[in-house]
Amino acid sequence: MREEKNRPIGVFDSGLGGLTAVKEIGLRLPREEIVYFGDTGRVPYGTRSAQTVCRYALQDMRFLLKEADCKAVVVACGTVSANAMPLLRQSFSVPVIGVIEPAVDAAVAATKNGRIGVIATPSSIASGAYEKTLHEKNSDLQVFCAACALLVPLVENGFTDPEDPIPTLTVQRYLRPLIEADIDTLILGCTHYPLLRPIIARQLPGVTLIDTGVAAAGALGELLSSEDLHRTDTDTCKGRMRFFVSDEPTGFAQAAARFLGTEDGAFPAVERIRIEEY
Amino acid sequence: MREEKNRPIGVFDSGLGGLTAVKEIGLRLPREEIVYFGDTGRVPYGTRSAQTVCRYALQDMRFLLKEADCKAVVVACGTVSANAMPLLRQSFSVPVIGVIEPAVDAAVAATKNGRIGVIATPSSIASGAYEKTLHEKNSDLQVFCAACALLVPLVENGFTDPEDPIPTLTVQRYLRPLIEADIDTLILGCTHYPLLRPIIARQLPGVTLIDTGVAAAGALGELLSSEDLHRTDTDTCKGRMRFFVSDEPTGFAQAAARFLGTEDGAFPAVERIRIEEY
Repeated sequence: MREEKNRPIGVFDSGLGGLTAVKEIGLRLPREEIVYFGDTGRVPYGTRSAQTVCRYALQDMRFLLKEADCKAVVVACGTVSANAMPLLRQSFSVPVIGVIEPAVDAAVAATKNGRIGVIATPSSIASGAYEKTLHEKNSDLQVFCAACALLVPLVENGFTDPEDPIPTLTVQRYLRPLIEADIDTLILGCTHYPLLRPIIARQLPGVTLIDTGVAAAGALGELLSSEDLHRTDTDTCKGRMRFFVSDEPTGFAQAAARFLGTEDGAFPAVERIRIEEY
Repeated sequence: MREEKNRPIGVFDSGLGGLTAVKEIGLRLPREEIVYFGDTGRVPYGTRSAQTVCRYALQDMRFLLKEADCKAVVVACGTVSANAMPLLRQSFSVPVIGVIEPAVDAAVAATKNGRIGVIATPSSIASGAYEKTLHEKNSDLQVFCAACALLVPLVENGFTDPEDPIPTLTVQRYLRPLIEADIDTLILGCTHYPLLRPIIARQLPGVTLIDTGVAAAGALGELLSSEDLHRTDTDTCKGRMRFFVSDEPTGFAQAAARFLGTEDGAFPAVERIRIEEY
């Protein structure tokens, strides 16, 4: 068995979105090995019930721990972070980092007028997790939430061109109440949303956008430091990334290569697994 | 055990869409008992691989046969019909009706200029099933297909208002090549699409729209006649509808009541099951 600190970091999401966190972790912690699971056979999570999200999240965690023996897991999925963190922390002994707390910390640090917006999936917003966590940090904050059911399907199906009226109109509709509420900071409460960042930014000039994947990568670095879990070996796993999905790997591999800015052909093999067996 | 012909009809779909077929079956065959399964825990199917669609479809069938002892099953899902019919027919002994063959028959009967359009999910279009079945009927037909990844998420999330520019622009984009191809008949190759019918019809004046659910209900009636499987008893199951889903039932029950035009409060209980155990 490898020494504790030389085991990989696990990252999972319902689909592609969590790769925004993987990219950031790769940049900040280039020595670490990352094992990613994208539940492409059951994406999206954000329009399902909390009970189903919890059941899927337990399987995702079990896969990462059983097959990759991860030393820590980043839940790079806003919906799981909003609905399942207490359950995951109570069910597993490795440190588990969600995206909500790091994003909330960044938003609290960024806001000047105390008016913070949150866009996320219906399931995340219904959980109340963002609002609750923001108010735990500062009960004077005013929080404005918008549940955005269509943004994940738009991203998963490539509707992200800033000149395209379809994602633009959809983003506009979801953001309208937040614009009217005069927010100065917006949490992109789902790891898919950074792919719509140019469209969102154009609707909200002067508003600080908080990327949950970036925030979670920062929190992971802090955790590895405080727990003395930074990788120290020099074996071939250093900096390696491995990818697993629950549906056909080809489409994911192409999207991931584009997404992570990997050179053509340099993208590692993506393996398919049966997540319901975990 | 009940007599063969007095057992229920099974109907399944990835989500809500198959209710368009249920409604039509209820109108045409009001004595029959219907047992519906909507795989709301794993919807959508149409952006998944053929292999995953087949695996899910086998589980859906096993549930209907094991728990409801159905005498026949309507696959009210274009994606399963396009990818899994040979597998399902070979794996189970009850008659299985898909939506493709009945819709193709209706389209062939309707077209005058021999130019037929098909809109369906990416998985359905990639299977080539509509094109192949149309050409088996008449090799001179010209077939124009459009894969429409975003229409199921639009319907599942309630973006169906004919005055809404978001579904209107999306439908316009998918239909543009079919309009340019001068089709006179369009197969709505997914049971979700009838909910967008007003928007689709407005883009295609004079074009005959073929509803797969309606076509499949007609084919079911013919099958029950030819196999002498029409229900003959008068017990309390007559005309009953039972609904099962793989995620939280509440949202489904509300949508289904609206969808089927049931009076308020009259909608039967929707039960949740674990489909991956079948």
